[in-house]
Amino acid sequence: MSKEENENSLVMRMRHTLSHVMAAAVRELYPEAKFGIGPAIDTGFYYDIDFGTTKVTETDLARIEKKMRGIVARKLPMTYREVSREEAMNWAIEEKQDLKKELIEELPESETISFYDLGDIFSDLCKGPHVENTSECGPFKLIRVAGAYWRGDEKRQMLTRLYGVAFETQEELDEYLKRQEEAKARDHRKLGKELDLFCFSDLVGAGLPLFSPRGTVLRDVLANYSLSLRKKAGFERVWTPHITKTDLYKTSGHFAKFGDELFMVRSQVNGDEFALKPMNCPHHAQIFASRPRTYREMPVRYMEPTTDYRDEKTGELGGLSRVRSLTQDDSHVFCRTTQIKDEIQRLVGIVRELYSTVGMSKLRARLSYRSDEDKYLGDKALWEMAQKQIKQAAIDNDLEYFEAEGEAAFYGPKIDFMAEDAIGREHQVATIQLDFVQPERFGLEFTNEKGEKERPVMVHHATLGSIERFMSVFIEHTGGWFPFWAAPEQVRILTVNDQVSEYVDKIKEVLDDVVLEKPLKFNELRYTVDASDDSLGKKIRRATEMKIPAVLIVGPKDVEVNEVSVRLKDKEEKVKFDKLGEYLKTL
Amino acid sequence: MSKEENENSLVMRMRHTLSHVMAAAVRELYPEAKFGIGPAIDTGFYYDIDFGTTKVTETDLARIEKKMRGIVARKLPMTYREVSREEAMNWAIEEKQDLKKELIEELPESETISFYDLGDIFSDLCKGPHVENTSECGPFKLIRVAGAYWRGDEKRQMLTRLYGVAFETQEELDEYLKRQEEAKARDHRKLGKELDLFCFSDLVGAGLPLFSPRGTVLRDVLANYSLSLRKKAGFERVWTPHITKTDLYKTSGHFAKFGDELFMVRSQVNGDEFALKPMNCPHHAQIFASRPRTYREMPVRYMEPTTDYRDEKTGELGGLSRVRSLTQDDSHVFCRTTQIKDEIQRLVGIVRELYSTVGMSKLRARLSYRSDEDKYLGDKALWEMAQKQIKQAAIDNDLEYFEAEGEAAFYGPKIDFMAEDAIGREHQVATIQLDFVQPERFGLEFTNEKGEKERPVMVHHATLGSIERFMSVFIEHTGGWFPFWAAPEQVRILTVNDQVSEYVDKIKEVLDDVVLEKPLKFNELRYTVDASDDSLGKKIRRATEMKIPAVLIVGPKDVEVNEVSVRLKDKEEKVKFDKLGEYLKTL
Repeated sequence: MSKEENENSLVMRMRHTLSHVMAAAVRELYPEAKFGIGPAIDTGFYYDIDFGTTKVTETDLARIEKKMRGIVARKLPMTYREVSREEAMNWAIEEKQDLKKELIEELPESETISFYDLGDIFSDLCKGPHVENTSECGPFKLIRVAGAYWRGDEKRQMLTRLYGVAFETQEELDEYLKRQEEAKARDHRKLGKELDLFCFSDLVGAGLPLFSPRGTVLRDVLANYSLSLRKKAGFERVWTPHITKTDLYKTSGHFAKFGDELFMVRSQVNGDEFALKPMNCPHHAQIFASRPRTYREMPVRYMEPTTDYRDEKTGELGGLSRVRSLTQDDSHVFCRTTQIKDEIQRLVGIVRELYSTVGMSKLRARLSYRSDEDKYLGDKALWEMAQKQIKQAAIDNDLEYFEAEGEAAFYGPKIDFMAEDAIGREHQVATIQLDFVQPERFGLEFTNEKGEKERPVMVHHATLGSIERFMSVFIEHTGGWFPFWAAPEQVRILTVNDQVSEYVDKIKEVLDDVVLEKPLKFNELRYTVDASDDSLGKKIRRATEMKIPAVLIVGPKDVEVNEVSVRLKDKEEKVKFDKLGEYLKTL
Repeated sequence: MSKEENENSLVMRMRHTLSHVMAAAVRELYPEAKFGIGPAIDTGFYYDIDFGTTKVTETDLARIEKKMRGIVARKLPMTYREVSREEAMNWAIEEKQDLKKELIEELPESETISFYDLGDIFSDLCKGPHVENTSECGPFKLIRVAGAYWRGDEKRQMLTRLYGVAFETQEELDEYLKRQEEAKARDHRKLGKELDLFCFSDLVGAGLPLFSPRGTVLRDVLANYSLSLRKKAGFERVWTPHITKTDLYKTSGHFAKFGDELFMVRSQVNGDEFALKPMNCPHHAQIFASRPRTYREMPVRYMEPTTDYRDEKTGELGGLSRVRSLTQDDSHVFCRTTQIKDEIQRLVGIVRELYSTVGMSKLRARLSYRSDEDKYLGDKALWEMAQKQIKQAAIDNDLEYFEAEGEAAFYGPKIDFMAEDAIGREHQVATIQLDFVQPERFGLEFTNEKGEKERPVMVHHATLGSIERFMSVFIEHTGGWFPFWAAPEQVRILTVNDQVSEYVDKIKEVLDDVVLEKPLKFNELRYTVDASDDSLGKKIRRATEMKIPAVLIVGPKDVEVNEVSVRLKDKEEKVKFDKLGEYLKTL
């Protein structure tokens, strides 16, 4: 669906009308309110409003919503009319709508100015489109109040943004609200605290998470699994520092494009200037270039989980979804143009395996190609050959894909993967990007069979993407009930009383020897013992709160019959002592 | 030996006299030479000289040395005389010795100015001490020419520094030169390039090494081994970002002391200021402080291999010995004051095990205590108790130690370890430091048995120290012949001809299943196959150049008798095919 088709769809017109209805209700309740903009969005609508000194919070939403329902019930028409610039300005001045006045002033001279009248109760500067009558509006609900800078500019005044959701049917609305509730319960910021995975410190700063032992286990297990898949596919680990002279980005071409977004680093000793790296490709290109290469060693495949720094605005930082310190599980292949398809196949295979393992096997791939514009660098024939290889790789891998012309990066075509989580949300995850530009700029080359110099192509790839962002998705996808192999604490032994301590020692010996081999090799069991004086009920509650996948409850009766009571997330069973090790390996 | 005793020792006086002899020889050969300073040093002497437009290089040393031997043979006396400031100045002006003139001008008014006359051929501004006659000078040799800024100031002119070595006996000199030769052959910068371990890029900058796949394997194996020892001892991994608001260091107290040595990081988006972390303790303290703690979980032990950034001067950077990006295998224990000794014992045990594994079991420990000065922070009784516990831990561990009063850090007493390498050089390696100050400044606490708040003590520890620096030591210690478990490429299979390819496949199946368990668990075998068309001789040469610990040579005869020829560093043997896996595990 094109942007325009989307705007004109019934549900989007409903939402847009509801934003006017909300504004009308607000004006009745708060006559001094000044209105900014109020668009329809993907799930509903919002309006940014200046309430002056009055503070409007979520407790006020019910009252506004009630007033809105009254307006909708009156079946008011939405009428379009065009006005002259002068009429528009007079209206804004008369109504004391300063924000609208600013909008009108900025409209180009040539632009037709239009208003929409909601019956005779509310007029608004607006291009539409809308439904014809409020009776067409579907079910809706106001859900949230947030702050928003006027024109998105941190230097302008802070407005109050009222959010509503609206759908064509009550079922869709209920489904959406239920999903929101689910998402709230799974919020990784909440779970991150409850499960003691990570924390923030005011002394360290926003967007800079610190991972406590449990969160670090999760990080490492996920990162190591991703590394293990790539190792199997011939990738070798490299290591590069986090800072560099800006010369590196001046040569790569990044400086000209993103130079003013870099975190700059200054030596106080001698004034030397560096940048914190926001990506790793130019560093890896330096390793490739550090000695002569021949066709025999191509493709050269590097991987490095390393932390990049990106200067996100403080307002955009929240939990792990968007951080300033993002650890990429980054990879770069240097290959011949004839090897592109094989390399992409290999990477697609890795992506499918990883996302299927973490229970997100429903993947969609966007194949982004060049358009006929001039902004793309590199030989056009090379682009076309590469795009063909990308498509063939998608087909051969039976990938659900769609093609997007004009969506390629300036340096080469790419594949982006979208994965669906347990509650049906789609997240952009892995990426595979060809690059014809950096090899050129860094003068990378290898000697081919004929003894001539040949230029390699670079393939950028991240499987998890940023580990922090992936963790935010994974925590919410699992709701904190991590699969057994990935759980920071996989097993907790709870003692019923002191008489079982010898038996517990025997169990510990068994657990010490358990090493999981799938999906990550050499994954030693992580367990603890709760032998405190607390009641069993309290111990179980604590273990459940921490979402421990396997809780072993050991009482005198278990000792007698040489058994262990195992409590999993959704069942309990008895396991014979001598089967315990094998049993745990099946979880 | 005190500094003064050292200066007055015979060998140091010899060396000092030889620097005057060298200057005299230089003046005869280069009458325009202007002299800076020429002291005795630990292994000999040097003189910083301004040769004007004449370029003096190492090829000129033989000529200078010959002239020196002539002077020494003349048995000239070294005569002390005091002069007035005016006489000294007149001398400097007459002799056109501008550098000396500057030195004289800066001498305090109260200072006695003295000269030493070498026979009647050369006079120099000098405090001494010297031998009485050049006949007392022992064997010597000029070895090197380097650049040196006048007064060590990068903004002043660059002088030429001529280095000589000198000892009391010819044996000592020979021994020293031999060791120098050995050290040169083992130079980790040279081996780093030859073995393709790491590289530098002018675009990235000095002191910022990039590790290629082989070097990264070595890094990881060493770091993982160090982690595994600490994991066994109850340490848990954490992860912290590389930048922080300076508030963290203002609170910890580091900012006041080292604030102007930090690499400062600036956001171009909103001007936020951060620092690159030069150490990790304050970050770890934030994780400890992120939730309430009770005595039951003490001690809390964190470990993190993470890269710190320190602003070393470019002139001081060389290979991996001194870098700007140093990866610490850092650990912090938060414990009760009664647990100090146990924790130190635990750490001493880890240090001994690690250095014994890497073949550097000869360790010396310096126990650094407070003196009676006021500069030490924290309760004196606590210091004394802690120092007693440190000493007891050293004794209980049968550690070779010496005590150094007044050498403690301001925040607590410490143990520093010195390890001897294969050619007898001593390197400062691991450290264990108590800290009474940061827990106070960060308000760290836990609830004790009585329900009261109690303050923990912090113990800082690094086992390898900086991984980069450790690698520089380890590469030179082993001469690049890494122990089997640590070698980046442990095994290389060389084929004699094409007929053996099936047999090689069978061997590869065996190698794929080999997992070393000591000293590092789950250490999968790293091997390659050289099946190129080159001659066997060439293949062997290549494998030897890369110092591969085990080279498997496979020819048709080996296939016939079901054997493999194994070539180790210093022997060759035949191994039966079905014993190969087990055999490799014994290397």
